[in-house]
Amino acid sequence: MTTQAKATPRERLLEAAASLTYQEGVGVGVDALCKAAGVSKRSMYRLFESKDELLTASLEERITAFTARLLPAADDGRPPRERILHVFEQVESRAGAPEFRGCRYLAVQIELKDEGHPASQVVRRVRGNLTAFFRAEAERGGASDPDLLAWQLSFTFDGAVARAGIRTENLAGLIAPTVSALLDNAGVR
Amino acid sequence: MTTQAKATPRERLLEAAASLTYQEGVGVGVDALCKAAGVSKRSMYRLFESKDELLTASLEERITAFTARLLPAADDGRPPRERILHVFEQVESRAGAPEFRGCRYLAVQIELKDEGHPASQVVRRVRGNLTAFFRAEAERGGASDPDLLAWQLSFTFDGAVARAGIRTENLAGLIAPTVSALLDNAGVR
Repeated sequence: MTTQAKATPRERLLEAAASLTYQEGVGVGVDALCKAAGVSKRSMYRLFESKDELLTASLEERITAFTARLLPAADDGRPPRERILHVFEQVESRAGAPEFRGCRYLAVQIELKDEGHPASQVVRRVRGNLTAFFRAEAERGGASDPDLLAWQLSFTFDGAVARAGIRTENLAGLIAPTVSALLDNAGVR
Repeated sequence: MTTQAKATPRERLLEAAASLTYQEGVGVGVDALCKAAGVSKRSMYRLFESKDELLTASLEERITAFTARLLPAADDGRPPRERILHVFEQVESRAGAPEFRGCRYLAVQIELKDEGHPASQVVRRVRGNLTAFFRAEAERGGASDPDLLAWQLSFTFDGAVARAGIRTENLAGLIAPTVSALLDNAGVR
């Protein structure tokens, strides 16, 4: 509560945009956003030109936390195979939480259906970072075709978070064997 | 145009719901749906209790066409490996079309964020059918663990359509090696 009280209107709007779009989708209204943030519409429009700009800024602001949660530390000294599996362990461990609704970046992109939207550009950047991480580890791990493996891991990630987000099934014990099969196939031991 | 003219208001509403939600998302308004269908709101509400009911009916109505497009004919006599690859060839060939926005069932489920929604139940059924197809072929093909392989193929499918739908990349040449790696790993030759 103390943090909430000290947060600026801008911070509260970014927080409201992040949580409401995650829970309800990008269609959430400006009224609901302002109400959740405790900010008047007038103040909101002074800070952000539009709801789209607010949404874009809230996605942008979460990139660092998202990346830190998902990727291993740059210098953890573990072999590439373990570092790649680390990402999927993070997904598996979060997927069980009742509030988990999949990857916010993938969901926003699917909901917007518009690659030209400024928020889509943020999403592409975040997703590009993940693929670049897989690509670098694949190469370091001696994969026969690092580009192909990076792509396979990226879409295994998407499939896993999509299914976990819509509660298709419990992911426990299903992701690791899939990723391992792809790593084995590419010769990353 | 003749077909359009002969279609009943119910058919036109189902068609409008299917195309507008595919292009714009489940947030599309009743006004837009009625306008696209050329049906008054009053008529719509005589035919469907709510927009949710219309959406659910439109998803239900497309199941047969969706399944026929994706799955091979039951009696095509091809080996399980080929029958499984057939599904992914369909995805790959459709993914290039400009109007392709991924799998409508996956998208609706991600957008609704509500497993209790009647449309979510239709989605679960369709997706369950696909997994059941993979499961049956995996077993017929002698997979070491048919349940695991069915799940791996299902989420490869989700990852592929999600990425194709948001134009992350051109899928050409990327799906088949991934599916082949999983089939090899499970011993389905």
